[in-house]
Amino acid sequence: MTELITIKPIATIHTDTDPERIPSQRRNMVSQIKMLPEYLDAITGLDEYSHIFVLFWMHQVRRADYQNIVHPRGREDLPLRGCLASRGRNHPNPVGLAVAELLELNGDTLTVKKLDAFDGTPVIDIKPYDDYDRVAEPRVPDWWPGRQKSAGPCT
Amino acid sequence: MTELITIKPIATIHTDTDPERIPSQRRNMVSQIKMLPEYLDAITGLDEYSHIFVLFWMHQVRRADYQNIVHPRGREDLPLRGCLASRGRNHPNPVGLAVAELLELNGDTLTVKKLDAFDGTPVIDIKPYDDYDRVAEPRVPDWWPGRQKSAGPCT
Repeated sequence: MTELITIKPIATIHTDTDPERIPSQRRNMVSQIKMLPEYLDAITGLDEYSHIFVLFWMHQVRRADYQNIVHPRGREDLPLRGCLASRGRNHPNPVGLAVAELLELNGDTLTVKKLDAFDGTPVIDIKPYDDYDRVAEPRVPDWWPGRQKSAGPCT
Repeated sequence: MTELITIKPIATIHTDTDPERIPSQRRNMVSQIKMLPEYLDAITGLDEYSHIFVLFWMHQVRRADYQNIVHPRGREDLPLRGCLASRGRNHPNPVGLAVAELLELNGDTLTVKKLDAFDGTPVIDIKPYDDYDRVAEPRVPDWWPGRQKSAGPCT
């Protein structure tokens, strides 16, 4: 099965956060997800959940730049790995995935926290976050940026 | 931004589990993800992680059957909700998302546990699971099927 798949945007992300500041502000940044009119009803009841997965299309990624092996996040101090072994933007299909806190549902708009996407990004799917999605103690490499405060620099 | 997005499969899921039995067996089922040759290198180092997100394309879903408002999982005993307020297959874009335990990386093949997808399903992305993806106590509705053992039937 190598046929191409066609996906349609269902919503658009709006945020005032400067793209350059998203990596440092992602834990606290607040965004709006505005549904396209034809999918307004599809979010009915979503506010019964505290958290959602937001799948979005990183439309500013240049697919021509794709490489299988990369320094994660473009940081040459991190070891070369397959692009699928990091959460960077350089994936074969630049689909973004964020776990966001759902603050409010108001009409066609969801207000969320911790969605690290640029203003204008198309959303392709939204899913409620379930207890089943929680891994108590996920193992990650020593070089993983989120670990380095406790684990020290990679050696 | 309402342009169509084109996505290409990067791998295929293989499992012996009967599709009818996947819902009841999903916690323990084991599957293989076989990369397409051009993306073999892209999984280098992925086995440094214990868990991964697998994004797949539910190719057997008939998109013509899509509805905004549904009984979650087709169960008429559950209340009508927007399709995005449940984890069913009836989403505008039938993208599946599973948190899977990574058991082994061997050449072009990942062996994983807890990937509830049919045999032959195309994979569109793989991402490592990070501590950042863990929500300590996600809130879900009382009617949510995973809750009902403890919360009792919905009222």
